[in-house]
Amino acid sequence: MRVISTLLLLLLLITIGSSSLPTNPKQRVHVPCKRLVFYFHDIIYNGHNSKNATSTIVGAPSWGNKTILANQNHFGDLVVFDDPITLDNNLHSPPIGRAQGFYIYDKKDIFTSWLSFSFVFNSTHHKGTLNFAGADPLMNKTRDISVIGGTGEFFMARGVATISTDAFEGEVYFRLCVDINLYECW
Amino acid sequence: MRVISTLLLLLLLITIGSSSLPTNPKQRVHVPCKRLVFYFHDIIYNGHNSKNATSTIVGAPSWGNKTILANQNHFGDLVVFDDPITLDNNLHSPPIGRAQGFYIYDKKDIFTSWLSFSFVFNSTHHKGTLNFAGADPLMNKTRDISVIGGTGEFFMARGVATISTDAFEGEVYFRLCVDINLYECW
Amino acid sequence: MRVISTLLLLLLLITIGSSSLPTNPKQRVHVPCKRLVFYFHDIIYNGHNSKNATSTIVGAPSWGNKTILANQNHFGDLVVFDDPITLDNNLHSPPIGRAQGFYIYDKKDIFTSWLSFSFVFNSTHHKGTLNFAGADPLMNKTRDISVIGGTGEFFMARGVATISTDAFEGEVYFRLCVDINLYECW
Repeated sequence: MRVISTLLLLLLLITIGSSSLPTNPKQRVHVPCKRLVFYFHDIIYNGHNSKNATSTIVGAPSWGNKTILANQNHFGDLVVFDDPITLDNNLHSPPIGRAQGFYIYDKKDIFTSWLSFSFVFNSTHHKGTLNFAGADPLMNKTRDISVIGGTGEFFMARGVATISTDAFEGEVYFRLCVDINLYECW
Repeated sequence: MRVISTLLLLLLLITIGSSSLPTNPKQRVHVPCKRLVFYFHDIIYNGHNSKNATSTIVGAPSWGNKTILANQNHFGDLVVFDDPITLDNNLHSPPIGRAQGFYIYDKKDIFTSWLSFSFVFNSTHHKGTLNFAGADPLMNKTRDISVIGGTGEFFMARGVATISTDAFEGEVYFRLCVDINLYECW
Repeated sequence: MRVISTLLLLLLLITIGSSSLPTNPKQRVHVPCKRLVFYFHDIIYNGHNSKNATSTIVGAPSWGNKTILANQNHFGDLVVFDDPITLDNNLHSPPIGRAQGFYIYDKKDIFTSWLSFSFVFNSTHHKGTLNFAGADPLMNKTRDISVIGGTGEFFMARGVATISTDAFEGEVYFRLCVDINLYECW
């Protein structure tokens, strides 16, 4: 009995040790509980490409309009988008979801933006949504934004997504790579 | 003594079992720590209803304007709202708070939107705010968005809100039912 | 052995007691794990101050325009900003970061707004971002909004920020004090 109780105690200590780990933030090792990498493709409406466009300017400063991105680094332009998400960097790959939301250009001096959007999945790959918000200083090679929540397969998710511009063509097309690292998975 | 220690061990096992449950995401049972159901009522300004309107178009694509929702499924319309929240589905029930924020129509092919808003309560029912963000594919019977934070009574809250369209009249009025399930309560 | 096992049990009880504290929300004492106080300065473009302006109207209701805040308490105006953050309340203090995002005036009857933005730091003081969202009923002395995420130094942060209007001059300049209290620090 004594041996058993000692063994049980040891077992308990181990159990407690491991189970209490996540409760102390200081002890956390920042290893994501889930990692996902996607691409999404944004084609801005410019007055001539309504068939292919996936986004459009809906708000502009007094010196701007809705079909040409404003000067002063597009400061004040607000763009609404519904972009295809693909697993690789090919615009023509079968989309596995949609990136839906908006971005604003928010600085006069340099190109920089702020965005808030959702990844909406409803396919065999994934079912659910991930919600994002954060600053996107375009001139930096990589930018970190927050994963502020999720639903379905990504129920209650939180994390950090690292965005990088994978390609851009003039002021009409750009492609972002989104490296999603979730640190709270339910 | 042996009996007592065994009993204590059992007690410990039970205590650990229950207390460690929330620390291990895999073990979590997804029971909300708080559930709230509300309705909110949106009356879009159409040029003739300024007295009753609770929302207005403030951003529109180049082919749209500010008093009529744009064609192509309203793609690109951005609407700012301050809507009454009621406990039942009657527009004329005493409002217990305000739903304040915006939504955008973000797709050309079908009706779908994206929204971010707060529920602002300052009454005997509730005091505090809840903040929401997420995709709202209107054609689905129910849509899940994220509760991304809260203040006051809802300090640090997180969860999932299930939205359903309870009624709509033409392109002027709609009523949403919001079934809020919080899974993080402080 | 009996004494040791009893001592171990006691030790266990204490260990469990302390380690399980953070897992039970009811028991949490709401002491922030990090507190930061900043000021940010917003100068709205009015058609004549393009050199100093840090924000501009980009969305307006049908009765408004882009250089004058609309009547009816600015209801429907959407403003994009890139404001300097300072440690004290002096507009001319060296900025230690930028507040980037947008706000909307969302009520006809009184002044009230809704905002979503990031604090972007890249200096010796701080490196990283904090993301915010929430209702901002301007007429209240203090308003609580949510810290919905963070990156870099503020990796995975969550909390509540208390905003107060520190000064305003006409409809062109206002200064906000932001008292940030983080309750989730990694």
